[in-house]
Amino acid sequence: MSDVFDIIRFNDQGLVTAIAQQHDTGEVLMLAWMNREAIEETLATGRVCYFSRSRNGLWRKGETSGQVQTLIELRVDCDGDALLVLVDQPGVACHTGRRSCFYRAMGKDGTVTTLTEPLIDPHTLYGS
Amino acid sequence: MSDVFDIIRFNDQGLVTAIAQQHDTGEVLMLAWMNREAIEETLATGRVCYFSRSRNGLWRKGETSGQVQTLIELRVDCDGDALLVLVDQPGVACHTGRRSCFYRAMGKDGTVTTLTEPLIDPHTLYGS
Repeated sequence: MSDVFDIIRFNDQGLVTAIAQQHDTGEVLMLAWMNREAIEETLATGRVCYFSRSRNGLWRKGETSGQVQTLIELRVDCDGDALLVLVDQPGVACHTGRRSCFYRAMGKDGTVTTLTEPLIDPHTLYGS
Repeated sequence: MSDVFDIIRFNDQGLVTAIAQQHDTGEVLMLAWMNREAIEETLATGRVCYFSRSRNGLWRKGETSGQVQTLIELRVDCDGDALLVLVDQPGVACHTGRRSCFYRAMGKDGTVTTLTEPLIDPHTLYGS
């Protein structure tokens, strides 16, 4: 068996992409980024922690919104530059109050259609 | 309805991350990148085309390996910097001959375990 950090290839900002997928339904919930510290914390605590590029710091998912993700399994891809985070996500993953961030579909003509509406008012998630 | 290219936020290399998911089983197959041209070609032809960062050009999935992906639906996330490509992928997505690129799991102790073995010999996919 190899060590995780021998395999993961971080980009020049020290980050790797991380796809969050609901472990039982297969829903792809969101795409975010992790640095080494976020991976270590996620593995150690079993609560998923990302790296926020906009806030330039660790982002413990659910810290503000309450929509915590519990780690089921962390996987790494063939060339080590992407992670698949199998999670248990009750409630919603998206800051818009939707279950998944991928709620818009593109038509062949380039138009965009909204597939789902928010389950929770975003003001409830983050305060008004 | 909005236009796709009003919503997508490409990075400074003109790229956006794209997650390929098998539309019916929910398997996350791979993570790749697309530029504007790859998105346009994918929508126009219904065959998934990525942008290869290593080859610095369009990557028509399956062109060499035969493992073509047919587009079912292209989705975009809340902040426009990630795509979810629902595909029909017969055979394998990974260049190692495995169904999915995410075939390794990380333990809490940092060790890595291989979950699946190749279904197709990679030499068969790409010639020896």
